[in-house]
Amino acid sequence: MKATTPSDRNLPRDQDTLRENETNRLISADKVEGTKVKNRAGEDLGTIDSIMIDKLSGRVAYAVMSFGGFLGMGERYHALPWSVLKYDTDMNGYVIDLDKETLKNAPTYERGEKVDWNDREWGQQIHDYYRVPPYWI
Amino acid sequence: MKATTPSDRNLPRDQDTLRENETNRLISADKVEGTKVKNRAGEDLGTIDSIMIDKLSGRVAYAVMSFGGFLGMGERYHALPWSVLKYDTDMNGYVIDLDKETLKNAPTYERGEKVDWNDREWGQQIHDYYRVPPYWI
Repeated sequence: MKATTPSDRNLPRDQDTLRENETNRLISADKVEGTKVKNRAGEDLGTIDSIMIDKLSGRVAYAVMSFGGFLGMGERYHALPWSVLKYDTDMNGYVIDLDKETLKNAPTYERGEKVDWNDREWGQQIHDYYRVPPYWI
Repeated sequence: MKATTPSDRNLPRDQDTLRENETNRLISADKVEGTKVKNRAGEDLGTIDSIMIDKLSGRVAYAVMSFGGFLGMGERYHALPWSVLKYDTDMNGYVIDLDKETLKNAPTYERGEKVDWNDREWGQQIHDYYRVPPYWI
């Protein structure tokens, strides 16, 4: 298996690769990380930074998106419920149905900030914000 | 959120960190990658190389374990169904109930080998080998 580096993703993709992304059910977490997130208008919202897995169910709970900042300064992190992300081959990234203004009001945390991933109240707020059922249901 | 590098995992862990690993339901894919896999006898079997996610269900399908080799030469990859891995805080790694001999006969692929992750027959063989139901059921 070829290792995928972030730079791979910047190379032009041929039709085979596109078709592969479209039809393949399985994707490596590494490949998800570094993928751009856009809204339906095609505006860049951020980049997938990491994937949070629920050990108990084996489900992906969140895709954490980094947003804004420069060289790691001022960057904010959004824990996006996995279910709000749709992969769009034409846009070559994940698409969420959210404008930039709405995203600014979404729950975020900053680099170095301690997040209690097991705080159900916090998790509920996030899922409420994005209007999807929580991963633990 | 503190970025976790593989070297972090080699540092001695205090009781708080252990407790966190034990009780936290969520874990980042980055943290799973690089974690050692052992058998019940405590023998090193390999290291988690990557995580394969089923886009449709949002479930982790496989944890790919690298095994053997030196500087990437002769290394073999095992696609382990996520459900066979149990995290063991005492062993500071994942434990699977398998001896080294049995692992040698398991389905593997080598670096650079093209794997058709959507081949159901191949997937069924793997799940049969490890005696767990397939992720798509």
